[in-house]
Amino acid sequence: MIGHPDFVTEPWCLRETGLDLGLLAQTESLFALSNGHIGWRANLDEGEPHGLPGSYLNGVFELRPLPYAEAGYGYPESGQIAINVTNGKPIRLLVDDEPFDVRYGELRSHERCLDFRSGLLTRRAVWVSPAGRAVRVTSTRLVSFVQRSIAAVCYEVEALSDPVRIVVQSEIIANEQLPAPSGDPRVAAALGTALVPEKNASHRARAGLVHSTRGSRLIIAAVMDHVVDGPGGTRVDAESFPDLGRTTVVATLEPGQHLRLFKAIGYGWSGSRSLPAVWDQADAALAGAMQTGWDGLCAEQRDYLDNFWARADVEIDGDTSIQQAARFALFEVLQAGARAEGRAIPAKGLTGPGYGGHTFWDTETFVLPVLTYTTPDAAAQALRWRHGTLPMAIARARQLGLKGAAFPWRTIRGEECSAYWPAGTAAFHINADVAAAVVRYVRATADVAFEQTIGLELLVHTARLWRSLGHHDGLGRFRIDGVTGPDEYSAVADNNVYTNLMAQQNLVAAADAAARHPDLSGEFGVDAEEMAGWRDAAASMFIPYDEALGVHPQAEGFTGHQVWDFSATTAGQYPLLLHFPYFDLYRKQVVKQADLVLAMQLHPDVFTREQKARNFAYYERLTVRDSSLSACVQAVIAAEVGHLDLADDYLAEAALMDLDDLEHNTADGLHVASLAGVWTALIAGYGGMRDNGAVLRFAPRLPPGLTRLAFGMLLTGRTLRVEITRTMASYTLREGTPLQILHHGQPVTVSTGEALTCAIPEPPPAGPRPVQPVGRGPKPHRPSGS
Amino acid sequence: MIGHPDFVTEPWCLRETGLDLGLLAQTESLFALSNGHIGWRANLDEGEPHGLPGSYLNGVFELRPLPYAEAGYGYPESGQIAINVTNGKPIRLLVDDEPFDVRYGELRSHERCLDFRSGLLTRRAVWVSPAGRAVRVTSTRLVSFVQRSIAAVCYEVEALSDPVRIVVQSEIIANEQLPAPSGDPRVAAALGTALVPEKNASHRARAGLVHSTRGSRLIIAAVMDHVVDGPGGTRVDAESFPDLGRTTVVATLEPGQHLRLFKAIGYGWSGSRSLPAVWDQADAALAGAMQTGWDGLCAEQRDYLDNFWARADVEIDGDTSIQQAARFALFEVLQAGARAEGRAIPAKGLTGPGYGGHTFWDTETFVLPVLTYTTPDAAAQALRWRHGTLPMAIARARQLGLKGAAFPWRTIRGEECSAYWPAGTAAFHINADVAAAVVRYVRATADVAFEQTIGLELLVHTARLWRSLGHHDGLGRFRIDGVTGPDEYSAVADNNVYTNLMAQQNLVAAADAAARHPDLSGEFGVDAEEMAGWRDAAASMFIPYDEALGVHPQAEGFTGHQVWDFSATTAGQYPLLLHFPYFDLYRKQVVKQADLVLAMQLHPDVFTREQKARNFAYYERLTVRDSSLSACVQAVIAAEVGHLDLADDYLAEAALMDLDDLEHNTADGLHVASLAGVWTALIAGYGGMRDNGAVLRFAPRLPPGLTRLAFGMLLTGRTLRVEITRTMASYTLREGTPLQILHHGQPVTVSTGEALTCAIPEPPPAGPRPVQPVGRGPKPHRPSGS
Repeated sequence: MIGHPDFVTEPWCLRETGLDLGLLAQTESLFALSNGHIGWRANLDEGEPHGLPGSYLNGVFELRPLPYAEAGYGYPESGQIAINVTNGKPIRLLVDDEPFDVRYGELRSHERCLDFRSGLLTRRAVWVSPAGRAVRVTSTRLVSFVQRSIAAVCYEVEALSDPVRIVVQSEIIANEQLPAPSGDPRVAAALGTALVPEKNASHRARAGLVHSTRGSRLIIAAVMDHVVDGPGGTRVDAESFPDLGRTTVVATLEPGQHLRLFKAIGYGWSGSRSLPAVWDQADAALAGAMQTGWDGLCAEQRDYLDNFWARADVEIDGDTSIQQAARFALFEVLQAGARAEGRAIPAKGLTGPGYGGHTFWDTETFVLPVLTYTTPDAAAQALRWRHGTLPMAIARARQLGLKGAAFPWRTIRGEECSAYWPAGTAAFHINADVAAAVVRYVRATADVAFEQTIGLELLVHTARLWRSLGHHDGLGRFRIDGVTGPDEYSAVADNNVYTNLMAQQNLVAAADAAARHPDLSGEFGVDAEEMAGWRDAAASMFIPYDEALGVHPQAEGFTGHQVWDFSATTAGQYPLLLHFPYFDLYRKQVVKQADLVLAMQLHPDVFTREQKARNFAYYERLTVRDSSLSACVQAVIAAEVGHLDLADDYLAEAALMDLDDLEHNTADGLHVASLAGVWTALIAGYGGMRDNGAVLRFAPRLPPGLTRLAFGMLLTGRTLRVEITRTMASYTLREGTPLQILHHGQPVTVSTGEALTCAIPEPPPAGPRPVQPVGRGPKPHRPSGS
Repeated sequence: MIGHPDFVTEPWCLRETGLDLGLLAQTESLFALSNGHIGWRANLDEGEPHGLPGSYLNGVFELRPLPYAEAGYGYPESGQIAINVTNGKPIRLLVDDEPFDVRYGELRSHERCLDFRSGLLTRRAVWVSPAGRAVRVTSTRLVSFVQRSIAAVCYEVEALSDPVRIVVQSEIIANEQLPAPSGDPRVAAALGTALVPEKNASHRARAGLVHSTRGSRLIIAAVMDHVVDGPGGTRVDAESFPDLGRTTVVATLEPGQHLRLFKAIGYGWSGSRSLPAVWDQADAALAGAMQTGWDGLCAEQRDYLDNFWARADVEIDGDTSIQQAARFALFEVLQAGARAEGRAIPAKGLTGPGYGGHTFWDTETFVLPVLTYTTPDAAAQALRWRHGTLPMAIARARQLGLKGAAFPWRTIRGEECSAYWPAGTAAFHINADVAAAVVRYVRATADVAFEQTIGLELLVHTARLWRSLGHHDGLGRFRIDGVTGPDEYSAVADNNVYTNLMAQQNLVAAADAAARHPDLSGEFGVDAEEMAGWRDAAASMFIPYDEALGVHPQAEGFTGHQVWDFSATTAGQYPLLLHFPYFDLYRKQVVKQADLVLAMQLHPDVFTREQKARNFAYYERLTVRDSSLSACVQAVIAAEVGHLDLADDYLAEAALMDLDDLEHNTADGLHVASLAGVWTALIAGYGGMRDNGAVLRFAPRLPPGLTRLAFGMLLTGRTLRVEITRTMASYTLREGTPLQILHHGQPVTVSTGEALTCAIPEPPPAGPRPVQPVGRGPKPHRPSGS
């Protein structure tokens, strides 16, 4: 897509200079706006044509029954699925007596630009109606990072040639008709008309709708107001219906004259507050936005983003497409998480209906590291959401016969929504992933209040889960049997190395945190015996190793399994899960996504350098990357074991996952975790950053194509800027007390003032480039320009 | 139930001397009549009250969609479920103006008797109407073993006290209303009105209905005719409606006078023939039965059963309840399989809707051994049915990416109907179970024509499956990874010992059969290389062994898993599958049903005597018998390792599974495989019969309570009778050439004429009695009388 001639590579925006209707659905995802609370797909203002209409409010979902042909104990009976809410985007335009529709008349030019610094999506079109009337339409949208219940549009029409009568209908629409879903199980099941009209009203240029949901019993309000700036005689009127609010503006424009419409939409929803309260809440938000005005909203947005980029920008010299992709990725991670506040960060953010709007382990493992070091408040908010679901996780653990908490594999509100337990319930590692995110956040921020109110309780309950899930065998080893690790082409295996290492970290972290807060942990019933039990289980954790091959099996016995017959597998048979039965995938050596390799990234000290190299080469031969959660991890370890060119190929794959629609499902929404992985591939890959110890480590080394990489990280309130060239790394602290770090294993101290510059040592020999399954290697990446 | 005071222990029948309405559903199963083609539950003639109305035709099913909340490649989309067909049983009686209903008036006496020698179900009742009119009702039913499309009733009413006007309505009814099913997943999903009326007609005393099914597109005809014998003035009339055929008989009886009604019902169904053809077929069968007449049908039935018992009877001295149960069991196995001819033998026979009318591996593994040695034609027919489904099994294997044939885990017509692959598709052992049944049948009958037309092809395709499912590992061992063995509390494990041994036998048997029939096997594409590949895989088959514990793990790694916490499990939490999640069951040491222990029964030479004793003791501690397919197997191995008292307890459990409703689901139909296991527990347990080698082996030894056990087995057309006392065993051949057998390891030859008598050696010491999980040991059995 980014390879499509309509797209232009620019460092600070995503720009499309034409309109290919075949790419509508994909571009609706790419140009989507969100602040983590409201999500607006980039549907055209006039509503049609569209790929997939989409307006989302984080946490708004409907229930659907989960059917089972053969039921089983503990299967969830009800699923949650994000629904398309009231659409505040539509602005229809009638030019004389013809509707503005890009499929009719002549579209002389069409450009869309998502600006990462302004946070605005601008669309410029020049259109000639079938009757020959030319107009310029300029529409600018934002979803406010500052006023989180507000989205706004500035819509301008200019008559270019003849006098024209213009009618603009600015609408809010509920229960839009959606296209039928595909058969791909990763796409959400569709729900029919989901919103029940409860109230509608209009007054002057304002209109509003209130709806409810049947099963999840939510109230959703959407209200809009307008400021119209047009020539004399411009008339404005509003009306409302159960599923429609409409403000109509009529004006006559002489050539060169403009009609300008500022439209602000306020959203409100609740599962507990009354209809009048929710309606008031949306109206109040709207009143604030109208007082701020369009220019004020834009200024706030710019200010918010200036702050973000000042601490978080990643600069890349030597590869313009990766520079653009890296900023796009950071911007999208921010859009997904900035203002989620008390709600989950879904796998697709709020950019599309993929995965039913569910949140998985990706949030904690892929997205939160980026937020922790760039926007720590958002990371804390995401973990507060998890903490808020603790009662459900504790109930789920009890239902499963376990102690502590069992967080759901996929959910919106907190209840388990996975209907396939081998790749759901059995993937217990999510609990340790949550714990690891807590540990990382607390270490990075020294936020003691968070540890006391949120972190400790999460650590305690997840540690209890592991202690009850595992057991000591006759040899005294602590085993965790019958679980599923990150790789979804294996399931229900014993002693998955990733899971066991994550559990080990979880148990130790819980014991350490409980020791730091003895009174508080006592309130949770933790005593010295329990803490000792956690430490003992962690110390005895069984990590299987295949002595004969000199590699770690992904799980016990894995390396004895038959290797998948890659030579007999055609390109069209990927992703394998759509063409082969689970039973066959599970019992063979074939890896969907980094699992043992991710363990090496997150637990670098458990593996020797030689083991890392051997393990990486071994799993490279087996990994088909049918998941978007793999390339970024492979990039990190490829860089560590010295295959920087391979790392660069993987980085490019992660970076272009959506921009080039590599998985052919960008239409359903962006792969937020993979986008987050771009940052990780750069910072942990080329920067060699590891944060598993008390001291942050860097081991920077650039791939052949790059000449400079610079990035920032927030650490306990201090901004560390790192700048890497081919031979040197320099570390700068913007504020605060000196910071000790490791540079290629050497302790160094960074202080404010002068940059600390360190030489980058010669790399040790890397050995032959690892081989991937036939046809599944990453596309060779050629850095583009400088 | 058999412990209920209404039941009487008799050697040749099951007799109930009262009517407990609370046991109606169970007794409908126990007294059900079937010939393997037609199945009639023992609903009362007058239809109400009932537990569960049920009339079945083997192979008549409806399709139902199999829903998945998360779909996967290769999941079956459509299930098959046996349906309640046109009910030919109802005979309603009006005494003056009051309907005969056991819930009203006074039931002075009520007796039902299922006679194993006559094959008749007789019911005798004396009833006084609310108005004080006393009648004796005697009804006798049969489902003919000789005329397989015919069921018949002889219904007699006698006025006992006053003159009464009697109206008898003899009916055939389609689309009866069925009670709502329970939530137990082992009970079938209910289907609503399943039969579409196509035609109905009546003439004189005859009436008939033709229906079709919507999804499975079957045509089903049921026709009835009557012979009425009553006093002068008796009137007979018939009429028909879409779902009802009714013949009405009106008579006035003086005290002592009888009205006698002979009702015959002919059934016909087809998935390929036209409606007129099916209607004609049912009418023709009925015409034959009417010509035979009631007495003729009874005589044929008796003759058929006399032959059966002459070759198959099992005599037990010292335990009258086991004597009765053993004959009941043999009778039920015969009822299930006698005339299935081209159709499957369902897990519940045709006695109830349990398991949706599906056939599983039980048929080949539990039922066919009994039929092979008592009614070999029926065994051959069952295997012919499997062979008929080969095209579907080959297609399924191809869908799964495998060679050869993959038979369905559960089915009616042949397509896979299991919607839960870890306990369905992954249970590949069914393929070797089919192969083993072929090997046993051919060895027992020397039926070369069968081997050529049926057996060889089954062996070849199942061997191909194993060769493609397994692989050689780096140590040259042939491994079969990621499959599920018989124990359903483990799943998707590597190198299940039972599966690997069965596959090994399958591979060798296929190679041997192909070598015997080189031309034929060549037609199937078998060449010397393929045969060598089978033999090599068999020779290299990996059988895991835990050296530290000195036991065979059920599957690789099993003995390292956590032992289920039996002490924390309450009696109400069994069966565990209804109270604990699969993930927890699968990853712990807890055994639903004999798995490794069944492997020791079927592959006795793979294990040393000491290993058998240790393995048995080890698995006894873990086995909870939440399946009815376990006790009989445990009885066999308990006997072999010298725990004859424990064997007796297990035998009693298998024998009383339905008679005492031990699993609380006899209402849904009988456990035919467990009933077959009664024979196996006696013959392979106390008789020590093993048939895995070329020469049949016996190692007889009676448990403390029994003084004599005698049984017959058909071998290559010769009837071998075996009689065992506490000290001696005698072998008699009724006809044919001499037969070499092993008696306690010693080769001996049995000839016609004089019995061969052998001493039973002293048993070796057995060691301490194995221990079962708390509360899960078998109920101690006390032999009842002599």
